[in-house]
Amino acid sequence: MEKSYVSQIADIETDFAQWYTDVVLKTKLVDYGPVKGTMVIRPYGYAIWENIQNEFNRRFAECGYENAYFPLLIPMSFMSKEAEHVEGFAPEVAVVTHGGGEKLAEPLCVRPTSETMIGTMYGKWIESWRDLPVRMNQWANVMRWEKTTRPFLRTSEFLWQEGHSAFATAEEAEAETQKMLQVYDEFARTCLAMPVLTGRKTEKEKFAGAVATYGMEAMMHDGKSLQSGTSHYMGQNFAKAFDIKFTDKDGAQKYGYTMSFGVSTRLIGAIIMTHGDNRGLVLPPVVAPVQVVIVPIAARKEGVLEACRALEARLKNAGIRVKLDDSDNSPGWKFNEWEMKGVPVRIELGPRDIEAGKMVVSRRDGYEKNEALLENAEREIKDLLNDISVSLYEKAKERMQQRTVNAESLQELLDGVNRGNFVRAGWCGCRECEDKVKEFAQATSRVMDGTNTAKKCVACGKKSQHTVFFARAY
Amino acid sequence: MEKSYVSQIADIETDFAQWYTDVVLKTKLVDYGPVKGTMVIRPYGYAIWENIQNEFNRRFAECGYENAYFPLLIPMSFMSKEAEHVEGFAPEVAVVTHGGGEKLAEPLCVRPTSETMIGTMYGKWIESWRDLPVRMNQWANVMRWEKTTRPFLRTSEFLWQEGHSAFATAEEAEAETQKMLQVYDEFARTCLAMPVLTGRKTEKEKFAGAVATYGMEAMMHDGKSLQSGTSHYMGQNFAKAFDIKFTDKDGAQKYGYTMSFGVSTRLIGAIIMTHGDNRGLVLPPVVAPVQVVIVPIAARKEGVLEACRALEARLKNAGIRVKLDDSDNSPGWKFNEWEMKGVPVRIELGPRDIEAGKMVVSRRDGYEKNEALLENAEREIKDLLNDISVSLYEKAKERMQQRTVNAESLQELLDGVNRGNFVRAGWCGCRECEDKVKEFAQATSRVMDGTNTAKKCVACGKKSQHTVFFARAY
Repeated sequence: MEKSYVSQIADIETDFAQWYTDVVLKTKLVDYGPVKGTMVIRPYGYAIWENIQNEFNRRFAECGYENAYFPLLIPMSFMSKEAEHVEGFAPEVAVVTHGGGEKLAEPLCVRPTSETMIGTMYGKWIESWRDLPVRMNQWANVMRWEKTTRPFLRTSEFLWQEGHSAFATAEEAEAETQKMLQVYDEFARTCLAMPVLTGRKTEKEKFAGAVATYGMEAMMHDGKSLQSGTSHYMGQNFAKAFDIKFTDKDGAQKYGYTMSFGVSTRLIGAIIMTHGDNRGLVLPPVVAPVQVVIVPIAARKEGVLEACRALEARLKNAGIRVKLDDSDNSPGWKFNEWEMKGVPVRIELGPRDIEAGKMVVSRRDGYEKNEALLENAEREIKDLLNDISVSLYEKAKERMQQRTVNAESLQELLDGVNRGNFVRAGWCGCRECEDKVKEFAQATSRVMDGTNTAKKCVACGKKSQHTVFFARAY
Repeated sequence: MEKSYVSQIADIETDFAQWYTDVVLKTKLVDYGPVKGTMVIRPYGYAIWENIQNEFNRRFAECGYENAYFPLLIPMSFMSKEAEHVEGFAPEVAVVTHGGGEKLAEPLCVRPTSETMIGTMYGKWIESWRDLPVRMNQWANVMRWEKTTRPFLRTSEFLWQEGHSAFATAEEAEAETQKMLQVYDEFARTCLAMPVLTGRKTEKEKFAGAVATYGMEAMMHDGKSLQSGTSHYMGQNFAKAFDIKFTDKDGAQKYGYTMSFGVSTRLIGAIIMTHGDNRGLVLPPVVAPVQVVIVPIAARKEGVLEACRALEARLKNAGIRVKLDDSDNSPGWKFNEWEMKGVPVRIELGPRDIEAGKMVVSRRDGYEKNEALLENAEREIKDLLNDISVSLYEKAKERMQQRTVNAESLQELLDGVNRGNFVRAGWCGCRECEDKVKEFAQATSRVMDGTNTAKKCVACGKKSQHTVFFARAY
C-alpha cells in the first residue's frame, strides 16, 4: 500500500496528453470500457457528475424547466425530417437493426441528441398558445460514433443534459437561447471556477439544423480551447419538420419556435485540464466529491481518532463533504493520495493540535499550511472553500487573459496559437477564409465576440465583419 | 379549460386495465413513444422517479454503495460467457450492428442488465482481498425487447437501478442479498406505503445466471401480483465467467462471490395500481411530486392570493413540496384536477378562513375535510402527510391480508386466484407441478415464504417441501 502515485504521473508541461491520461486513470475517475471508444465512469468521477447535476437541476428549475425522459431509440426516418440535421448526425450514429431475435422493419438509431424525438412529442402535446412555453430537460446517455476518443473529452457514449423548449414567438426563443447560455456561464464561473468565452458560433461550427448556435469555450492548461456547452436557436426548422403547431390567440394556426441547450460529462474533462497540476487533480470545491479530508497524526495516540471523528461529524453536520482517512497508511502517503485526488482542503490533527485546540489546514491550490482554532472549524472551512473557489477562478482567468492575443495576419495568428494562445482577429464572414485559417494555423473559430473591433479579415484582408476568437481545440 | 377529466376515467372495478391506461395518460405521467413498446416519462411521472431515486440513494449510501456508470453497449460475446445468462436474455436483446456508417466487427447488444459488463470491470479492478467488498450502484436505462407492453409495467426501454457487489466469501454475498431485499421491503413500506411479500423465487422464476433470486411482490388493486424488486445471489457463476479473482490473506488466488439487485420505473406502476381509485391517482406522500396543493377561494378578493402565497412560502420553507394553483380555473375544476393527480393534501383558503386564522384541509385518501389553525400549518401538514402514509399502508396491508388464502387442491387454488387472491399452498419442489399450476390456474409461483407449513403439494399431493405464494401476475 505504501507507494506514492505522484511520480507515476507524466509532467504536465512536457507531455500534457499523457498527464491527462495518467491523472484520470490513477485517480480512478474513469476507466476504458471494453468496447472501443467507451468509458466507465467510476464512483469518484460519477460523484463529480452528480454534483454538477444537482447544481444544474436547481438552476434549471428556477428557469421553469422540468425533467423528463424520452426514448433512447429514434427511427431513422425522424432524423431525416430535418435536412441539415440528418446530414450532420447520420455519419456518426449507432444503428439497431435487430430486436427480440428479429430484423426490425425500420432501423433505429441510438440517440445522438433528441431534437427529433422531443420535437415529435411536442408536436403531439402542443395545441394552443396556452400550452406554451414548454420547457423540459433530460439527463441521458447519448451516442456518437467517434474515431478518436479520450475519456470525458470525446467518447462514443457520454452522459449529458439536453434542455428543449418551445415558444410562440421568435423573440422568446432567441431570448431563452441567450438566457441558458448565461446560466452555463454563471455555472462555469461559480461551480467549476472556470472562466469561459461565450458567443455565437460561425455557420461552419453551428449545430446541424440550428439557425444559430452559441457556445462557451474554456482555455485548458495547454492553451487549447474546449467547447464546454452550447445553446441553439432553431427558429422554426424543427417546428416545421415535426409539426409543432399551435392555435394562437387570434385563432390562427402557427408554427412554434424552438431552442435547445446541452452540457455533458465533457465538463469533467474541462475541470481536470483547467485546474490540474503536477501533483494531479485540483477540484473546485463546489463539485468536489470530497471537499475536506481529515488526516490523523499519530493516530494510535489516545484521543486522536476520537477528536478526528468528532470534527468529521461537525463538518458533515455543517453540510461539508468531509472524509476521515483512518486507514493504516502513513500520513505522508495520505497527503500524496488526497493531493493527487484534488481534495480542496486537508486537515491534520494530532495530539499536540488537539491539546492546543487547533488544527493544521492546508489548501490544495496553494500548498499553504495554516493553523486554525478547532472551535471555529465549520466557519473556517466554509470560508476557506469559498476562498479556494475564487482564487482558482482568478488564476484561470488571469491565464486566459494573458494568453489571449490579437492578430492581424495569418502568420500572427499561427504564432499566437503555436504559443498556446486564444487569438482574436477580424473575419470577413466567408467560409473560405475560415477554412484558410484552419489550413494555415490548424486553428478553428471558437466564438464570435459580438463586436467588430478589428478592421480587416485576418485571412483575406477585406473589411472585417466579425471579431472572432480562433484557437486550437479539443 | 373548464372540463373535468374524472368522468373520462374508466371504472376501476369493472375495467381495471382501461382505468390504468386512462389514469397514466390523463394525469400526464407518461405517453407512448413513437417506437412500439417505448414510453415517454413526462415531468409528473419523472418527478416521482426522482423522489424514488433520492430515497434509494440515501439508503444505498448507508449500505456502502457508490454510484457509477457503465457502458450501454455490451459485446455479444460477453453475454455468452455465462451459459444460463445468455439463454435467458439473448431472445430479448436489441442489437447494434452498425456504427459510424460501417458494419461492426462484433454485434453489440443494448444492455438488458449489466452483470456481464460490470463483471468484466470487476475482474479488472479486483486484485486483492483488500479490494473487497466492492459495492456499486448504477442508475441507467436498459432494454428488453417485449412483445406485449404497458407503460411502466413492461416496456422495451425502462429506467432502473442495478446494484452489484463482490465479496470474498459466500456468506457475505448471501447476507448482502438478504440485506438489500430488506432495504427494498423497508422502502416499499415507508416510501410507497406498499406492503410486500418477500421471499425466494423458484428455480423456474429466478434470474438467468443466479444461484438464488429473492423477490418482493405487491398486491395490486385487482388482486394480481406485481414483482417490484429482486435481489440475486450469484455464487461464483459470474466470478468464474468474468475472472473476478483475488489474492486472499493466505496468498491463494480465489474467485469472489457476487450479487446484484434492482428496481425499476415499474415501481411507478405499482404505486398507481396499489393506491389509485375512481378519482384517479392516490400518491404516497414521500414520493408525490406535489404533496400539498393550495386552492384559493374567491381568489380575487383582497388579501386572498397574498395569504395563499405566504402559506406556500412557509410550507416550502418547512421542506414540503407545495404548489399554489393560482390559475384562472374554478375551485371545483381544481379540486377534480388535483384529486385526479393524486396530491395527498389540499388546502382551501378563502376570505373567511383567513379572517378566522384557519385553513380547510382535505386528504386525498379519505376525502375528510377539517379545519386547522393557519399558525400551526407546518406542523399540521407534516403530521397529516405522515398520517396519510400510515393509513395508505394499513389499507393496502389489510387488503393483502384479507385476500390471501390457503389452498389444498388445484381447484381451491384456481378459485382463489379467480377471486383475485394470493394463494398460499404447499409444493413438492418439482418443475412439473409448478407448470401444472400455471396451466390449471394461470397462476405462477411468486415467492416461497421460507416455511413449509403445508403438508402436501397442491398439484401432486406428495409431501410438500415449500410453502409458496401463487398468484396471477403482471
